[in-house]
Amino acid sequence: NIGDDCAVLRSGVKGKYLLLTCDPVVEGVHYRPGTPPDRVGWKAMARNLSDIAAMGGLPRWAVVSIGLRPDTPVRNVEQLYAGLRAAAGLFGCAIVGGDTTHVAREPFVVVTLVGEVERRRLVCRSGARAGDAVFVTGKLGGSIRGKHLRFIPRIHEARWLTQHFRIHAMMDVSDGLASDLQRLVDAGAVGFDVVSRAVPRNGSLRAALTDGEDFELLFAVDARDAEALKRRWPFRLPLTEIGRAIRRRMVLLDGAPLTVRGYDHFA
Amino acid sequence: NIGDDCAVLRSGVKGKYLLLTCDPVVEGVHYRPGTPPDRVGWKAMARNLSDIAAMGGLPRWAVVSIGLRPDTPVRNVEQLYAGLRAAAGLFGCAIVGGDTTHVAREPFVVVTLVGEVERRRLVCRSGARAGDAVFVTGKLGGSIRGKHLRFIPRIHEARWLTQHFRIHAMMDVSDGLASDLQRLVDAGAVGFDVVSRAVPRNGSLRAALTDGEDFELLFAVDARDAEALKRRWPFRLPLTEIGRAIRRRMVLLDGAPLTVRGYDHFA
Repeated sequence: NIGDDCAVLRSGVKGKYLLLTCDPVVEGVHYRPGTPPDRVGWKAMARNLSDIAAMGGLPRWAVVSIGLRPDTPVRNVEQLYAGLRAAAGLFGCAIVGGDTTHVAREPFVVVTLVGEVERRRLVCRSGARAGDAVFVTGKLGGSIRGKHLRFIPRIHEARWLTQHFRIHAMMDVSDGLASDLQRLVDAGAVGFDVVSRAVPRNGSLRAALTDGEDFELLFAVDARDAEALKRRWPFRLPLTEIGRAIRRRMVLLDGAPLTVRGYDHFA
Repeated sequence: NIGDDCAVLRSGVKGKYLLLTCDPVVEGVHYRPGTPPDRVGWKAMARNLSDIAAMGGLPRWAVVSIGLRPDTPVRNVEQLYAGLRAAAGLFGCAIVGGDTTHVAREPFVVVTLVGEVERRRLVCRSGARAGDAVFVTGKLGGSIRGKHLRFIPRIHEARWLTQHFRIHAMMDVSDGLASDLQRLVDAGAVGFDVVSRAVPRNGSLRAALTDGEDFELLFAVDARDAEALKRRWPFRLPLTEIGRAIRRRMVLLDGAPLTVRGYDHFA
């Protein structure tokens, strides 16, 4: 399950899986030098919480591995932990351990989360079916202006979705809608046709398609459930139907192949 | 349980705990630039396996978070993973996921392990009792000359110990015997008196007491079991009784307070 947002493990508890995920945050890559340490901690934790959300799970335990320059003020370390704890605490997740080492140049924070999910509520990237309605939460694009340091992982929304509907496929939008839809294509048996004017956005359409770090939910559900889903959605957070799953295994925008791509951490 | 080598978690499986541990390896701190990547991978995995061993557990799943310079040859990445897989594979542990990011300067590898341990075989740092015999596996000191990159985590030995004897307290010697005995003192209710001529060593006594990264097992067991333990020990690896647990909560060497300290990663 390396292609999914978390590894899915059989813990031996009947009807449940363990979820395991681990994402690094590095100074200069995921945040600028000078970013308030509590924001760095929040982001490091929230990125991983978002991976648990993407599979319909609940976070349980976190361990944290931190690399800090020797001259880091104690106050900054405390603020970093405060940010980590604040994000974890929002969802009842306990920080149970970790290790700190020194680095000469580039501080990093690696959070590993162990979560749980009921077998019947587990959602992977692979399950979308042709004809499914495709939804996204929130608005896309422009996260770099601040949201990437203070976003709320969509745990509650994902839990509500998996409680009330059969979600066929889900992931969190971390590298931009265009890239992440392609990942759903790669993982599954269908493609997607997105309606450009439907995409909820903070700025330009291009930004909404290619900016990274939205950390919103992207999911596919049976089209017959689409209206009920929109009607019953209980959150203030916008929920928007942006297109359909199609037989052709590619990403289309208004029926034409989508060529722009999102942020690639490997580029 | 942050003071122990792993966090101990109730997974919901009767009679078992989950163990969770996460240790970073950073270039320039834990290995020199130019170290063969497979050795770096081995060390990153083996350090964490050693933490699972220290608590009597078996490793099950690993996730890996890697920071690499953009110019890292693909071959080096493959070798790094080969080292990670070789160490994990030795104990039936599966690498189930991970993430790679780029760094400008200092590569790092963070391995997180999830292990399991039967409740009755769990060993913590805190359980030593006055009068216990104290043992250590292998020989101490001089790890920097090469062992620190190719040590074998003492999983099999720890499992044998917890199967056949009631081990009262255990940890792995990672920062030198002097520092780590003090950790057993801090975690528990007793102190320790070590017999200097008994300490198994590769070089000087000072090196044996203060060099780091031995990754051997240090444990306390009822003194009445000491002879049976030595007689039945089935491994080639040396097993040495080095002293006794005492009422005074401090570390003594031949009856006098031990003042030298091992390597401190925070120093």
